[in-house]
Amino acid sequence: MKQIALLGFGTVGLGVYEIINLKRGAFFSSNDAPAKVKWILVRDINKRRTYKPTDCTLTDNFQEIINDDEVDIVISAMGGMEPEYTYIKEALKRKKHVVTANKEVICAHIDELTNLAKENGVKLYYEGAVGGGIPIISSIIETLKINKITKIQGILNGTTNFILTKMSKEKADFAEVLKVAQELGFAEADPTADIEGYDVMRKICILASLAFHTHAKTEDVHLRGISNITLDDVNMADSMGYDFKYIGQALLKDDKYSISVTPVLLPKDSVMCNVNQEYNVIMLYGDIIGELCFMGKGAGKDATANAVVSDAIKAFTEEDTQKHINFNETAHSYGLSGIKNQYYIRATVNNYEQFESTIDCAADTIKKNNLTYTNSKVFFTTELINSSDMLALYEKLKTVSEDVFYARMEHNLL
Amino acid sequence: MKQIALLGFGTVGLGVYEIINLKRGAFFSSNDAPAKVKWILVRDINKRRTYKPTDCTLTDNFQEIINDDEVDIVISAMGGMEPEYTYIKEALKRKKHVVTANKEVICAHIDELTNLAKENGVKLYYEGAVGGGIPIISSIIETLKINKITKIQGILNGTTNFILTKMSKEKADFAEVLKVAQELGFAEADPTADIEGYDVMRKICILASLAFHTHAKTEDVHLRGISNITLDDVNMADSMGYDFKYIGQALLKDDKYSISVTPVLLPKDSVMCNVNQEYNVIMLYGDIIGELCFMGKGAGKDATANAVVSDAIKAFTEEDTQKHINFNETAHSYGLSGIKNQYYIRATVNNYEQFESTIDCAADTIKKNNLTYTNSKVFFTTELINSSDMLALYEKLKTVSEDVFYARMEHNLL
Repeated sequence: MKQIALLGFGTVGLGVYEIINLKRGAFFSSNDAPAKVKWILVRDINKRRTYKPTDCTLTDNFQEIINDDEVDIVISAMGGMEPEYTYIKEALKRKKHVVTANKEVICAHIDELTNLAKENGVKLYYEGAVGGGIPIISSIIETLKINKITKIQGILNGTTNFILTKMSKEKADFAEVLKVAQELGFAEADPTADIEGYDVMRKICILASLAFHTHAKTEDVHLRGISNITLDDVNMADSMGYDFKYIGQALLKDDKYSISVTPVLLPKDSVMCNVNQEYNVIMLYGDIIGELCFMGKGAGKDATANAVVSDAIKAFTEEDTQKHINFNETAHSYGLSGIKNQYYIRATVNNYEQFESTIDCAADTIKKNNLTYTNSKVFFTTELINSSDMLALYEKLKTVSEDVFYARMEHNLL
Repeated sequence: MKQIALLGFGTVGLGVYEIINLKRGAFFSSNDAPAKVKWILVRDINKRRTYKPTDCTLTDNFQEIINDDEVDIVISAMGGMEPEYTYIKEALKRKKHVVTANKEVICAHIDELTNLAKENGVKLYYEGAVGGGIPIISSIIETLKINKITKIQGILNGTTNFILTKMSKEKADFAEVLKVAQELGFAEADPTADIEGYDVMRKICILASLAFHTHAKTEDVHLRGISNITLDDVNMADSMGYDFKYIGQALLKDDKYSISVTPVLLPKDSVMCNVNQEYNVIMLYGDIIGELCFMGKGAGKDATANAVVSDAIKAFTEEDTQKHINFNETAHSYGLSGIKNQYYIRATVNNYEQFESTIDCAADTIKKNNLTYTNSKVFFTTELINSSDMLALYEKLKTVSEDVFYARMEHNLL
């Protein structure tokens, strides 16, 4: 009987406990290695709980857990950097397999922790850290056995997808929809990590690190949130046949990578554009297999617990599915240069002549299509331009406008 | 060095040879066990070939291959029932692992061949048989470790998806589009297996067998092709906000299953409706994980070869990923009874009063919505009705109409 120590008894921890000890689902009947949660680490053992397990020990003392030689595997689902980062390191050093859903820890320390696991002959799995129940990490690892992956792109956050879906379907504005999302539990009281993109940033960095064999750092990510998307933008996109989605993208070109987390206009008849509500979708491109795309619930107790328990089952078998994973490539971030996109731009402009003269005196005049000037706002789309030219244009626009918003327009997204 | 015998040197065989022996992609650098194709079985060794391998032996003699004790694994990609079914059995009996993309053999003999593999302590993998490069079989097996799967549904044939996409986008009729598909190589000279649904039928039976732990038989499948879809149907669907897709569906309820392969109207803003051209998409529903959806190229040399080589790599490792697969459940097909759907119906009617009186004299009058009568054709949609009632209505309509077409209308498909 494999003994499991569970760190954290929140949403994910409870889901894991239910599947393994309470025999929800097929885990009990489908697998060779019977397993049991023996310990659960909580911060406050006296806290009033809706469910209090009687078949394992709740403790607030990590040492008690880590000193138990019977424990084969630590499932870590506390959230936040510390003390979970320290606990994960300790567990690996004590030669216990670790399964975690903590994207913050993995994003920052994927290289170090992977090496620590290898040095100690144990496994470190983190499927639950990205995309909830979607098996994206195991799919990337599987795909890498035959392919070079040069692109990963997707909708990786349920909160912002819920918000953008609602803004589009109901033609409602951001502040109003955020409030509804919070009331319904789709957004946190402090929604910053979701709406400013830190959550997506961590996830896309983890995926890029695996796919490009290099530890992708969050400092290299071009990051813009969704709070500046207005109802005018949504309506303008709609009139052109597009909807806004919040997209994490990682590209590899030669030995250089580029990662961005930004609002993007997707064609209404693309697959990705129709992934709505709290669903996530991730597309990868491999040189042999072409495009592969995965969709499902990106968060939530059951979907994430499913990924975590799936990893635990893998940890019990002899073969390490991640033994070929390394972060040894010396790929460097190249920012956004060299990438050409079409862009949508909106700027508040009180003096139209001043706007025109400022924009047009650029050495290369950027052709403005679909130009509309209404309610003191200028809306236009560009041709395919280099992203560095877009950044330069953005800086220029900010000199004549108090409020500038831009987003790239995607085509042919599956 | 693992020695591979390749049966068949057509599209898939060539793709496999390129990845393994010609080192296309990352196979050579990404994997522990170096492997080499040692034999290739062809029907005619004198046939003029664009590429003639010099690093392995072409033979038309299966015995030569099967008697070679150095051969660890047989990759079987010939197509058709015989001699491939016999060769696969022979290889398993000689304790060689088998990887195949042959859906006809697997669909008909999944139970027998799985047992034969187990008896001989070898592996039988067939990811390439369904959905090209999409890892649907391994995903079902993985999902089953924790979930009960009660629904699988998808677009599983590139030829018919190409045809229906073109009919919809260009408002062209079936015969015209089929011809273009054939010219472009998206449809065979004899397209029967694709357009009448036999290809999808075999694929959905394989997936249902795995997911429901019972050998699903093709005789139990409710099967209707796409050749009766007219431009009128496409336009009518379009006006209601739907498009036609060709859907394989498998449902499990208690210990009964139901499998169908039919044209279906999908809402234009659903994910599945926007999977176009030669792409496939498969959705599964598990009781813990909820909906998971996978998309990619469903056929083609590289995508299918990727699946096959991926299986070969798995076969080289010690752990059998399919050891828990069994077909021991005594689930029976329950046809379509008990399933309620909304239907679209079109019937050629020369005598409208006769049509009305025939339909209305049913004991339960089926409410007809969106009724249109034009060009001697009646078009209408029903409310949610039992599928057995739909079949009865269909039979009744055939007594007053020389040409009746119907298709269910799906809602909320991701």
